[in-house]
Amino acid sequence: MSKELIFGHQSPDTDAIVAAKALSYLENKLGADTEAVALGEPNEETQFVLKHFDEPALRVITKAAPEVDSVMLVDHNEPQQSVSDIADVTVSHVVDHHRINNFNTAQPLFYRAEPLGCCSTVIYKMFAENEVEIPAKLAGLMLSAIISDTLLLKSPTTTQTDVDVVKDLAKIAGIDYQAYGLEMLKAGTNLASKSEKELIDADAKSFELNGSTVRVAQINTVDLPEVFDRQAALEAAAKAENAAEGYDLFLILATNILDSNSELLVVGEPTAPVETAFGKKIENNRLSLPGVVSRKKQVVPPLTEAFNA
Amino acid sequence: MSKELIFGHQSPDTDAIVAAKALSYLENKLGADTEAVALGEPNEETQFVLKHFDEPALRVITKAAPEVDSVMLVDHNEPQQSVSDIADVTVSHVVDHHRINNFNTAQPLFYRAEPLGCCSTVIYKMFAENEVEIPAKLAGLMLSAIISDTLLLKSPTTTQTDVDVVKDLAKIAGIDYQAYGLEMLKAGTNLASKSEKELIDADAKSFELNGSTVRVAQINTVDLPEVFDRQAALEAAAKAENAAEGYDLFLILATNILDSNSELLVVGEPTAPVETAFGKKIENNRLSLPGVVSRKKQVVPPLTEAFNA
Repeated sequence: MSKELIFGHQSPDTDAIVAAKALSYLENKLGADTEAVALGEPNEETQFVLKHFDEPALRVITKAAPEVDSVMLVDHNEPQQSVSDIADVTVSHVVDHHRINNFNTAQPLFYRAEPLGCCSTVIYKMFAENEVEIPAKLAGLMLSAIISDTLLLKSPTTTQTDVDVVKDLAKIAGIDYQAYGLEMLKAGTNLASKSEKELIDADAKSFELNGSTVRVAQINTVDLPEVFDRQAALEAAAKAENAAEGYDLFLILATNILDSNSELLVVGEPTAPVETAFGKKIENNRLSLPGVVSRKKQVVPPLTEAFNA
Repeated sequence: MSKELIFGHQSPDTDAIVAAKALSYLENKLGADTEAVALGEPNEETQFVLKHFDEPALRVITKAAPEVDSVMLVDHNEPQQSVSDIADVTVSHVVDHHRINNFNTAQPLFYRAEPLGCCSTVIYKMFAENEVEIPAKLAGLMLSAIISDTLLLKSPTTTQTDVDVVKDLAKIAGIDYQAYGLEMLKAGTNLASKSEKELIDADAKSFELNGSTVRVAQINTVDLPEVFDRQAALEAAAKAENAAEGYDLFLILATNILDSNSELLVVGEPTAPVETAFGKKIENNRLSLPGVVSRKKQVVPPLTEAFNA
């Protein structure tokens, strides 16, 4: 079997980096020859995590086909979120926790998805099923990914399985996950040092919705007004990205991770489905979304429905 | 949790029926409320299996939405192979061993596919992972499905896992799988009693290949000349189905299960990609395909490539 690369989505978050590391560790234990790589540099939260566990960052690739024939995807499946030349390689494995969209293969493959809060939770189950032990450092990384994806187990995407797995990983890693988790999330919300372009690029995903290319960025914060002090500059940055990348609509979901409320900034067209999706009018290019913290569970599904209506 | 239906593909084969029964048994043990149903009547091979194990046939449905909001698919994912109103229900689970194509969801789901010889082999692994025992009768049914899909472990789709699982299931069921398997396969090749329409409907799947709707039927036999004595009538039946169902191309793969050779009968357009796919000229509407027994592994992939070229 020739070597395969394993990677998460573009604009990687902590789960995209950690799930690649975790699946690579497991697959290599089971006899495969894999290397975990990333489609971008780690964000500040992930940098905090890697530093905390004294773990190196992943090599960043922009193309896969020059290196390998076959790849494994973690934490994503939609081609526009993947490596730029995904059409030129065979996808042999997917491990994910998202909806499936525009993902087509010519051959049977290994596909494992579960509607859990984090891809690393799915991989934890695969370690157990294959009776492979999780080393302490990897347990700490996987726990970080779950805390990141579930906002310390508070997001509505959180399942009982995520809670149980975090507790078990905390035991293996020897960590007080509550205290560590809050410190880690706060490390990801240091917004003052970043440009508006950096803020809207750090955690952004593209979706094809009934012919429109919709970009949805999420910015976590502990202080929403601090984000919207920069509203005009954020709108300009989104407008510039729409023009440069061909997005029709750019949505910026600013989320207060302490009280679990969000504010959505809307740049581009069409806006009518956005209003339909959330049942309220856009004012000053903004929509208030109390209780919304999950792009996957609370933003993309109503948008998909509204665009397809 | 409200009730869900579980079913395999249209024109069900033994695996489509058995995998639905097996997953329903497992899910109900794990606390779900499911009913296994079928999208068609059992074929002769499956009738033999059900009779052998004194097992009732499944209730046949044509629509799911009048009964349930949510369904589980086994042994398929492509919408055109599924229930007619698949777009009106939520797919919560898929367990499969095929390529993924045109399968899109709005929400995260449970998806478990592996490139193994049979969907029932994947479900066997899920029983083991969840530590649920397989009753003797269900073991006999699952063993039958694996023998059916792999032509007694001789198809190139067969993996070492399928072999190991058949041996374990044979132990649980208390069966000599070689003797039983040959008897079962032969029961499915009683062609004389069937009309040409029945022959080409019994195990047929549709594929969207670059804008063409291609129907691929497979007829297992122990005597290829017996099939082609009826070539003109088979062509007429396929032509009638093309007209009635809107297929562009109808391919009939007649497979000798004893020596693992096939002959392909080609009815409709375009034929050029078929010649490209197998690297030979169609003569008398036929292509000889020595060593070919697997639609999934040896027919659909080269066709997909040729149609997309």
